[in-house]
Amino acid sequence: MTTAPTARAGTSLRERVTAAKAASRALARMSGAERTTMLDEIADALVRRTPEILAENHDDIADARSARVAGSVVDRLFLDEHRVADMAVAVRQVAALPDPVGEVTSGWRRPNGLEISATRVPLGVIAVIYEGRPNVTTDAAALCLKSGNAVILRGSSVARRSNRILGEVIAGALREAGVPAGAVTSLGVDRDEMLELVKMNDLVDLVIPRGGPELKETLGQHATVPVIYAAAGNCHVYVDRDADLDMARDIVVNAKVQRPGVCNAAETLLVHREIAQDALPTLVDALVGEGVELRISGEVRQVLGTRYPDLSPANPEDFATEFLSLTLAVGIVGSVDEAIAHINEYGTGHSEAIVTRSLGSARAFQEGVDSACVYVNASTRFTDGGEFGMGAEIGISTQKLHARGPVGLEQLTTVKYLITGDGHVR
Amino acid sequence: MTTAPTARAGTSLRERVTAAKAASRALARMSGAERTTMLDEIADALVRRTPEILAENHDDIADARSARVAGSVVDRLFLDEHRVADMAVAVRQVAALPDPVGEVTSGWRRPNGLEISATRVPLGVIAVIYEGRPNVTTDAAALCLKSGNAVILRGSSVARRSNRILGEVIAGALREAGVPAGAVTSLGVDRDEMLELVKMNDLVDLVIPRGGPELKETLGQHATVPVIYAAAGNCHVYVDRDADLDMARDIVVNAKVQRPGVCNAAETLLVHREIAQDALPTLVDALVGEGVELRISGEVRQVLGTRYPDLSPANPEDFATEFLSLTLAVGIVGSVDEAIAHINEYGTGHSEAIVTRSLGSARAFQEGVDSACVYVNASTRFTDGGEFGMGAEIGISTQKLHARGPVGLEQLTTVKYLITGDGHVR
Repeated sequence: MTTAPTARAGTSLRERVTAAKAASRALARMSGAERTTMLDEIADALVRRTPEILAENHDDIADARSARVAGSVVDRLFLDEHRVADMAVAVRQVAALPDPVGEVTSGWRRPNGLEISATRVPLGVIAVIYEGRPNVTTDAAALCLKSGNAVILRGSSVARRSNRILGEVIAGALREAGVPAGAVTSLGVDRDEMLELVKMNDLVDLVIPRGGPELKETLGQHATVPVIYAAAGNCHVYVDRDADLDMARDIVVNAKVQRPGVCNAAETLLVHREIAQDALPTLVDALVGEGVELRISGEVRQVLGTRYPDLSPANPEDFATEFLSLTLAVGIVGSVDEAIAHINEYGTGHSEAIVTRSLGSARAFQEGVDSACVYVNASTRFTDGGEFGMGAEIGISTQKLHARGPVGLEQLTTVKYLITGDGHVR
Repeated sequence: MTTAPTARAGTSLRERVTAAKAASRALARMSGAERTTMLDEIADALVRRTPEILAENHDDIADARSARVAGSVVDRLFLDEHRVADMAVAVRQVAALPDPVGEVTSGWRRPNGLEISATRVPLGVIAVIYEGRPNVTTDAAALCLKSGNAVILRGSSVARRSNRILGEVIAGALREAGVPAGAVTSLGVDRDEMLELVKMNDLVDLVIPRGGPELKETLGQHATVPVIYAAAGNCHVYVDRDADLDMARDIVVNAKVQRPGVCNAAETLLVHREIAQDALPTLVDALVGEGVELRISGEVRQVLGTRYPDLSPANPEDFATEFLSLTLAVGIVGSVDEAIAHINEYGTGHSEAIVTRSLGSARAFQEGVDSACVYVNASTRFTDGGEFGMGAEIGISTQKLHARGPVGLEQLTTVKYLITGDGHVR
């Protein structure tokens, strides 16, 4: 069985993206109830057409295995009935979220009687570029459609059959709901096509990449359309002089080990010098007990003395690394200000936590740290749309413009000022 | 008298922008009252040092005249005691605006007890790149400092002495207020330095250009730092079938002639076919009476018959042109939907107005037009930070991300999530 990796024969990319733009205007005019129904129909279709989806996925898996693709990639690619059912549940959860479109975010009347209101509207056309997980196809489609946007999906070649059938399943459900086909456009994996896509400023309103540093670099070089990066997280836990040590241990362990491969996991532990002698043995015991590989600064080595002689020394690069594994850099600082300076120097602006009983330290840390999410006495692992109560999200932004932190439905919208007068002139 | 057009000898651009970043952290920690006082001191210094400012400006003017620079440029460059006093008043007005920093834009408690609040914080370092008006120097500095940001000012060569002395006056006032010198950095006019600046993603948080299409194109090609364009406005007035004709005439005339050289002035008039016979003679009489040069479609010519035989025919390009002068393209459409489609096709997403007594038409127009500001029965000229009640602004954004419409103090900030727990782990 063969599949065309690029756009449908005879239809140029520009024609397809123009159709997406037209569909976005239709989506923006739909009621919230209609968009909810549309997502529920997509979820139904996913369940109903599970055998077709699994057959195509099976072929992708077979290809990946014969191409000796890494096992972790194959695992992320793999679908079974249970995983497809989970995808449908996720779509239904997005369907059930409050409608972000039409919210009046602010409104006022001017002294001259002119009435002004800022109203939330969809962005228009959102392109999502991602790697091997087929569930991103349905998650991204659901979030974009729910917020009234047309979506262009561009997955990776390893999942091309799975993504194509998922695109077809979604398209079929849209047809039944009477939604223009351009509302969800599945692209092939042609690189030139992607580079053309991210320069279509007149048609594409936003690009969201979900992938590694290579993809980010490619887009940094080529994209002229605005991009929100689902970013790297070099997250920190700082244990202050006034910390409760049991709490510090629980938070550090949770932030590091509960799910080490994700962006909100901790990568560096900083401990205040005055409690290092007491705190470090406890913290190191707990972390080593959980199988964490520590990379320690010279001063940490001095404090530990002859304990744990096998721990690796940390070099400056370790403090700038997002390990995404059971590895943690450990250092000592002399004050909360020094911790803040270290984090602002080495961090990626994602999520950082202080453990302290001091109100002064907590306030200084939250004010001084220049990151999207700054925690007091809680694990960095809470940086997540679901944990924030925002529902599903498409990633965590470490940018400062437009969206900072979890990128949920609200962040996939913009505002429009509606102004009503009675013949007002200046 | 000679001036160094580039950075101070011995100080690299990177060092200066690094100092701006450090200053931005100090500014973010200042109280709102301190930032207000700082701006008032800048205003005092402008008044106190007016003779120095006028002397340098005089030299710029003399240079510009001997270089045969266009008279309109010289006029924008020219300062006298009155104009400097106006600059000081504008700074004091910004000082008196509400402090945007520290506002809790939303906050909630999760079922697990975790407390989350989104708090407004400064962006960091903002670079403003502009042309010949010296008052932009003080306006931009005031808006950025008020919102807690460090600012890098890069004016044009024609105003280099004026801008340098204004930079010195501001720096002197900052010194007296105990604010780090990096808070306001005045660059020279070296092009390579500007291109280096707009690629410093680790240090510069936002670039705001205030200039023509050339500057926009240069930044589009070279900038990797996020840019908010103070954009072009191809604004429309649509006179619906149900319009009050007197109101339509007043609004069209105001939108076109009250200040034709600005981005919120109307550039196209569309009239509903069913009232064209009645409306066009009235509207054309009024516009021609105000000295407006009309470019009319073939159908408008038919409706006017032998009246005004000298009016130029409009070609499709005229409908895509921001004239910025007393010129207006005029066309006929068959419905509000056709007006919406025309505007979304030819417009720049800035400001558009419908004149109508029909609630249905008003709602359809506000929903269907994809522009930052959509007016019912009011002139497009109200798209302005002051008219919106937001105070001063640095431009009007036609982008959808981060800031759409007037870019005031609020749009020069971002949010930070502050999360407080009691040992919360996942």
